[in-house]
Amino acid sequence: MTYEAPVDDIMLALKTAVGLDDLIARGIYDGLDEDTVKAVIEEAGKFGAEVLDPLNWPGDRAGSKLKDGRVETPPGWTDAYRRFADGGWSALPCPEEFGGQGLPGVLSMAAFEIWSASNMSFGLCPLLTQGAIDALHTDGSDELKATYLPKMISGEWTGTMNLTEPQAGSDLGAIRTKAVKQADGTYRIFGTKIFITYGDHEMTDNIVHLVLARLPDAPAGTRGISLFVVPKRLVEADGSLGARNDVVCAGLEHKLGIHASPTCVMKFGEGDGAIGYLVGQENRGLNTMFIMMNAARLAVGIQGVAVAERATQRAVAYARDRRQGRTASSKAGEMGPIIEHADIRRTILTMKALTQAARAICLVTAREIDISHRAGEAGERKAAADKAALLTPIAKAFSTDIGCEVASMGVQIHGGMGFVEETGAAQYYRDARILPIYEGTNGIQAIDLVARKLPLENGAVVKAYIGEITATAAEVKASNRPEFGRMGVRMEEAVAALGEATKFMGRALATNPEAALVGATPYLRLFGLAAGQHYLAKAALAASREGADGAGPVALARFFAENLLVAAPGLAVTVTEGGEAILGFEPQRIGA
Amino acid sequence: MTYEAPVDDIMLALKTAVGLDDLIARGIYDGLDEDTVKAVIEEAGKFGAEVLDPLNWPGDRAGSKLKDGRVETPPGWTDAYRRFADGGWSALPCPEEFGGQGLPGVLSMAAFEIWSASNMSFGLCPLLTQGAIDALHTDGSDELKATYLPKMISGEWTGTMNLTEPQAGSDLGAIRTKAVKQADGTYRIFGTKIFITYGDHEMTDNIVHLVLARLPDAPAGTRGISLFVVPKRLVEADGSLGARNDVVCAGLEHKLGIHASPTCVMKFGEGDGAIGYLVGQENRGLNTMFIMMNAARLAVGIQGVAVAERATQRAVAYARDRRQGRTASSKAGEMGPIIEHADIRRTILTMKALTQAARAICLVTAREIDISHRAGEAGERKAAADKAALLTPIAKAFSTDIGCEVASMGVQIHGGMGFVEETGAAQYYRDARILPIYEGTNGIQAIDLVARKLPLENGAVVKAYIGEITATAAEVKASNRPEFGRMGVRMEEAVAALGEATKFMGRALATNPEAALVGATPYLRLFGLAAGQHYLAKAALAASREGADGAGPVALARFFAENLLVAAPGLAVTVTEGGEAILGFEPQRIGA
Repeated sequence: MTYEAPVDDIMLALKTAVGLDDLIARGIYDGLDEDTVKAVIEEAGKFGAEVLDPLNWPGDRAGSKLKDGRVETPPGWTDAYRRFADGGWSALPCPEEFGGQGLPGVLSMAAFEIWSASNMSFGLCPLLTQGAIDALHTDGSDELKATYLPKMISGEWTGTMNLTEPQAGSDLGAIRTKAVKQADGTYRIFGTKIFITYGDHEMTDNIVHLVLARLPDAPAGTRGISLFVVPKRLVEADGSLGARNDVVCAGLEHKLGIHASPTCVMKFGEGDGAIGYLVGQENRGLNTMFIMMNAARLAVGIQGVAVAERATQRAVAYARDRRQGRTASSKAGEMGPIIEHADIRRTILTMKALTQAARAICLVTAREIDISHRAGEAGERKAAADKAALLTPIAKAFSTDIGCEVASMGVQIHGGMGFVEETGAAQYYRDARILPIYEGTNGIQAIDLVARKLPLENGAVVKAYIGEITATAAEVKASNRPEFGRMGVRMEEAVAALGEATKFMGRALATNPEAALVGATPYLRLFGLAAGQHYLAKAALAASREGADGAGPVALARFFAENLLVAAPGLAVTVTEGGEAILGFEPQRIGA
Repeated sequence: MTYEAPVDDIMLALKTAVGLDDLIARGIYDGLDEDTVKAVIEEAGKFGAEVLDPLNWPGDRAGSKLKDGRVETPPGWTDAYRRFADGGWSALPCPEEFGGQGLPGVLSMAAFEIWSASNMSFGLCPLLTQGAIDALHTDGSDELKATYLPKMISGEWTGTMNLTEPQAGSDLGAIRTKAVKQADGTYRIFGTKIFITYGDHEMTDNIVHLVLARLPDAPAGTRGISLFVVPKRLVEADGSLGARNDVVCAGLEHKLGIHASPTCVMKFGEGDGAIGYLVGQENRGLNTMFIMMNAARLAVGIQGVAVAERATQRAVAYARDRRQGRTASSKAGEMGPIIEHADIRRTILTMKALTQAARAICLVTAREIDISHRAGEAGERKAAADKAALLTPIAKAFSTDIGCEVASMGVQIHGGMGFVEETGAAQYYRDARILPIYEGTNGIQAIDLVARKLPLENGAVVKAYIGEITATAAEVKASNRPEFGRMGVRMEEAVAALGEATKFMGRALATNPEAALVGATPYLRLFGLAAGQHYLAKAALAASREGADGAGPVALARFFAENLLVAAPGLAVTVTEGGEAILGFEPQRIGA
């Protein structure tokens, strides 16, 4: 079945969770209005459905291949990329002074959901390019910006992030790639990077690698890492392309999923050294890279939403079509569509509700990033930056966890056909599995949430956020509408559970950090459920005010509260009580 | 890393959950003792580790192929199968009068875990053969038994189960394959079956297909289905092999996992009709097939345990080896093994605890089946059969759900390497995904549990089982041992939750069955958690009596209670309260 962009669901999240009216009223974007937002999403939806979606399954079958040192993307890829760039899609959220369209990040993220849902492998190329653009724009010199940004924003060149090395995955402090300063102010780069997405391809004339490396006299660990631009082809003073730089793709990984996206082993400096240009200051590269990584983390969260959406669409279509057993609507002796079976309905509602909850969390995070860049007042910018910082690990980890879960449910809905590759459901299950891993594993996200984000402003940031959810819970309860079922009660319980777990974390961080870290993953899940409910409930309240019946957003929010949010109290027990048994288990005896 | 059979964990489950001493004391198996049991498991472990495990990854790469109408299994398969048969492994639980070893089913299931863990694709062949043996032994005529059983038990021939057709998956009533009676008492079979595991191969001279088909005058639905033996090659009166029967493999599925196991489209009667022999009575085939399917369902549950065990072993080995970041044991400036990180420890303990819990549930189910066949008193046999009936859907669905979950955690532990196929973790993730689907989807299992098993003996069967858990919870609480942490409290809560949900189900079944069915899946999960805890707690109590410290079985049971069982009260709320929102959602508006 064909992908159809979930324009209504995205608009619902934008209007109720993000508060689109408020965002527009702030006037931080010239001429932005709801019609423009919707039109952009609809156009993106067309491009995704018509151009990217038809390439998704053939791309999975063909995969990217390394031939004679060059990466060949699947048939149709180069043309689709050209149309993507020509359509201005690569320029969407980019600064206008370098040719970008300057649209809100929140809108760009909505479009990115569509690219990823229709073709996750394809969508990774603009994702990485955008990260590289952000890094250069934030910390690059004027000369670097002028040389690279216009071509990257127009889509003429793509970008990459070169962080991981075999011994340095989650621990970037262990990076060994070497950078040696030259008399002319450039650097020579030597080293091997792995897991480099779109590290090579021939869709564009040039590729702009951003590379983490270490100067010979750099301090050990993360404080001795510098960031460099290393173009695949050198750029002449007049902007034309010169010689090949000393960087090659030495291999492609054979992966579980995203087969069409080339995951490269990159060798820098097999000869005299790859020529690189410093971004920002020496030994401060990780700071810049973190800007890039935070944006990328949110985008990966959106990929989780995307794969969940795509898996749900396919499952719903199948469940409407496939007939097995008797159902309410089936005539005597005939079989009814499986979507009428109670257990299938539960599964599909679970998929829908988790997807919409994660979508809202991600789009709200994007909104806060927008405000943090554009609001007039410094205090407002700071508050938004803090909230975005708090929500980013949740947006990444919760959304990608549910992406895997929903993709798995999608396979299940198809029964035996789900296990047959040609059906397509299995591809989402395979593709989704990378999401909890890359851009910082979800374990790292949970640790980031607990150890770095909860202490922000002495706990005031998380406290304010929990206050938001508490207010929504109170509103749900006060509304006293029968179609809300027990949503108010379940929200109150969940808020209490989140509050208790958060207090526990605060105490543990101060006295015994291991006791906090050991509960980080269930804590993040608890947070994600509560935040997701918060936004679904806001949509339900808005729909209810407009006189909606008990279906649609109201039923979805109620379903989430009574079926999924109910896990919250148990998760709080896990956080506050469950760690002792783990920490008491000697690591070397685990699994013995 | 090489697979190592978890002999200690299996023996622990046998001794504490299954009650091996009691089983031996019953004297229903000649000469059975603990040493024999352990020796068989150790020998099976050797065969799995030395013969099957080395073929697992190459088998996944090579896959089975259809060439000129014949199925070629991967290199090494035929030899391994021959060694398997020669070792007497195919005869393990089979009746002695036909050449079997007559060992307990519970021991056979322990061995089957080992075949499946070392090579799930290989293990499927004996699984299906065993099902066919059971069906023939139960309902076949003396002539059919004499002709087929000795060769199947010796491993000279293999067996298959031919149920599914394109329009008849979960709903077997929709089967269209036709059987026409001949003057000589045989039947001619015409039709197409799909998803037939090892439907063709050349490892043995003959394959014995058990086929569901419908007589021309049969009643509609499930009451008009008959079961036939259809050998690939006809068997002459002297037992020698005659002509090819009119049955061919017309295609192989291209699947997400278990690539080495051929999943065949089988065509019966493309010519004059495949010659078939009736098993049992006309129109009563489904009864026999259910005997086969129940045994197969338990075996699939064991496959869930197996893939979880294998994924855990690989993850533990990686986590001990891989170094990232600073840990308690790492020297200044060095990285420590990731198994020392708190979040990784939580993940590995989750994997271990879920695996051992599911293993115990499956082995207890096997024990009850053994008693139901062999106990002297009819009342005892009936009670055991009822308990096995109650536990079978839980053994199947809970174990396979956690199989997928644990395999996914195994990928996650490996970080980026987990997504690279050569690492091996991804294969388990792919292979595991079939388990919640075949032999009745887990949704069907949940419905079976709620609609057919809870009402057994007017609810007395489930009540007695919950009573068992209650007693264990009380014993844990009364023991008052500090190393048990809050296990007693959490068990009491869980038992209360299970009791409440069970009562709700009883009422709903009587008044509004949809309200029961819609909660069947979370109810099964709740039941699985409580049952799993029950057995882990029994192991902890036993270890504690023997003076064990707070590691090993004690810590695992405590971990499970405080970290996983705590989901029970929330699941009970889902069951009792969550259905209304689902049933109120019109099916055609779900996903609209």
